[in-house]
Amino acid sequence: MLTLDAIYHARFVLKPIIRETDIIAAPKICPGAEIYLKTENLQITGSFKVRGAYYMMSQLSDEEKARGVIACSAGNHAQGVALAAAKNGIRAVICLPDSAPISKVEATKAYGAEVCLVPGVYDDAYAEALRQRDAQGLTFIHPFDDEKVIAGQGTIGLELLEQLPDMDAVVVPVGGGGLISGVAFAVKKLNPKIKVYGVQAAGAPSMFNSVRDHKVERLDSVSTIADGIAVKEPGEHTFAYVSEYVDEIVTVTDDEISAAILALMEQHKLVTEGAGAVAAAAAMFRKIPVDGQKIVCLLSGGNIDVTILSRVIKRGLLMTGRTYSVIIELIDKPGQLMDVSRIIAEQGGNVISIHHERANEGAAVNGCYLRLVMETRNYEHIAQIRDALRAAGFKLLHD
Amino acid sequence: MLTLDAIYHARFVLKPIIRETDIIAAPKICPGAEIYLKTENLQITGSFKVRGAYYMMSQLSDEEKARGVIACSAGNHAQGVALAAAKNGIRAVICLPDSAPISKVEATKAYGAEVCLVPGVYDDAYAEALRQRDAQGLTFIHPFDDEKVIAGQGTIGLELLEQLPDMDAVVVPVGGGGLISGVAFAVKKLNPKIKVYGVQAAGAPSMFNSVRDHKVERLDSVSTIADGIAVKEPGEHTFAYVSEYVDEIVTVTDDEISAAILALMEQHKLVTEGAGAVAAAAAMFRKIPVDGQKIVCLLSGGNIDVTILSRVIKRGLLMTGRTYSVIIELIDKPGQLMDVSRIIAEQGGNVISIHHERANEGAAVNGCYLRLVMETRNYEHIAQIRDALRAAGFKLLHD
Repeated sequence: MLTLDAIYHARFVLKPIIRETDIIAAPKICPGAEIYLKTENLQITGSFKVRGAYYMMSQLSDEEKARGVIACSAGNHAQGVALAAAKNGIRAVICLPDSAPISKVEATKAYGAEVCLVPGVYDDAYAEALRQRDAQGLTFIHPFDDEKVIAGQGTIGLELLEQLPDMDAVVVPVGGGGLISGVAFAVKKLNPKIKVYGVQAAGAPSMFNSVRDHKVERLDSVSTIADGIAVKEPGEHTFAYVSEYVDEIVTVTDDEISAAILALMEQHKLVTEGAGAVAAAAAMFRKIPVDGQKIVCLLSGGNIDVTILSRVIKRGLLMTGRTYSVIIELIDKPGQLMDVSRIIAEQGGNVISIHHERANEGAAVNGCYLRLVMETRNYEHIAQIRDALRAAGFKLLHD
Repeated sequence: MLTLDAIYHARFVLKPIIRETDIIAAPKICPGAEIYLKTENLQITGSFKVRGAYYMMSQLSDEEKARGVIACSAGNHAQGVALAAAKNGIRAVICLPDSAPISKVEATKAYGAEVCLVPGVYDDAYAEALRQRDAQGLTFIHPFDDEKVIAGQGTIGLELLEQLPDMDAVVVPVGGGGLISGVAFAVKKLNPKIKVYGVQAAGAPSMFNSVRDHKVERLDSVSTIADGIAVKEPGEHTFAYVSEYVDEIVTVTDDEISAAILALMEQHKLVTEGAGAVAAAAAMFRKIPVDGQKIVCLLSGGNIDVTILSRVIKRGLLMTGRTYSVIIELIDKPGQLMDVSRIIAEQGGNVISIHHERANEGAAVNGCYLRLVMETRNYEHIAQIRDALRAAGFKLLHD
């Protein structure tokens, strides 16, 4: 049974271990609202998960501690458990599907856990973790559906009530529901006037569906860049707490999440992972009531692979007119490439890639195509470049 | 004359205006040292510059305030002055060379300043700013060589002494020298045992050279990705303070700065600009004594263009084996592309771009080239893919 006492106790236990992360004003995220960011992406291990994992482990009996713990995760929970175990002096085994990104495996090992790579997918790794739990008497650390874990995550709610006591609302990412259960419980018990909103990825709306239908539902599949909240089925405990204490669950698309990741980087110098950015996305795209409201968006984590981040930036640059990709049809005679280059240079475009092909289908036999990618300032700048090319007689494809 | 009194006064004045930015432990930046990051990249406006600009303006007479201020900058100083003027209710004019990136112009306007675009380069904009100062009786806000500006930046030193009183050293980016003058003065006056190191870009070592030669020296040109500290000549005041209070100046290369930007993003979820990352780069690449030391690296700002950031990431991915670009020589017969694709897929490479060309110089007439870019895990993974391709008889170029 979750109690405020347990959350206060977790806070006392966690005090010397975790960072009490800052909240940062974010005036540009959503005009008309007063937005603050709770920066759990700057938490040790790069996510809030260490709070619940550490508190849960700290409450084990000496005998349980001596035997060790096991968990199944390829992400933030793995790193949270690994670090918490190291700090508690406990043996930790982390089961991962063997398809897990090498970077996640290395990060988990670096915190001192034993990594067990299981052939197959997540469900196979989960089954193996339960098998080893039983065989070796290890304690299984659930990523969300455990009241001690939830109490640990709830400490964020206590911090928020001190950091911004007059907030109107707090917006929280929802995967399995452990984080929002703890935060909502703490906030509502102490100040029921504060709204608590949950945010899921549109490609993994398990809690959204379950709350709507008043029963725990399982998704067949999930698909989202917010892998940290791509959970097929909420927990029993978390479903009950969310049903009782959360005002509303909303969803955001991958494009909205990408836009939020980019905005948090550009405007607030903060790196967030997909799951970490959904609360900011919900405010940016007004999925919750925002006008005149003082709102805290919880940035739950920042462990995004830079390869993915690079793609998110690339897409963001295209979407905001800062990269322009065009195909130009040329007559195959000398001087054409020079003319195109000169016009683009005059207009201040910065060419970053050129690809020249001849005699494709659809073009005249003596024609060829030039594919150019350039850095631009904005859509207006792109329009200027297009106009200048057309004025010189070039035909642009991709109109 | 700079005094501790002035810095304490600046702190009092700035209290309701700025954020007292957090320091964050950075255990992985430099093994063997205890590194902390002072996150001025999370300061309002994205850099420390608002401290000096605001304090300087707050000390103007009523008459001076009524006439307004002028500054010349395309970067953080412009935004600092613009915001400080808005908060002081003062008119601000910012002169910029007309080649300045549109994003900087827009950001400066967004803070409410009047922007004056001057044809030419920085020196032209500077001359125009002095002309308007004289013509309109405006007060010129120097970006660094002003003792009130320096006192404002010095407040960071006071914060550090409270946040980490037992630090052994603080490492500070150096452009014109305003930031390090203030920080070094505050730190050395209160605890002379703490070392103060300055860091310049190797492509803009004006203070480094000047201190070495014991006189102010001007560089003919500067070239570095750390545009925020690409300053040709230190100030007279700042040169004197640095000579007296700073223990040593070191330099870092653009590649080292890029590596630091990437590490701060991946490991600490913080976006820094080139200038903002030089202190971390100096620790990472051991340009200063690090072993067993408790060191604060000052991250001075985070205003990096995402286009540049995207390039830094791309370069970082290549340098760490997470992107692999290869050219394969094929015999021009059906099935070759399929074979290559299959081998790469079997090895877990993720192709992100393909370019196929025929009949280039150097290849047999019936030969052709396939240029592939793929996402890889690390250098070991790249070696596996290369071995598998070679084992199947393909010739790889770029060996």
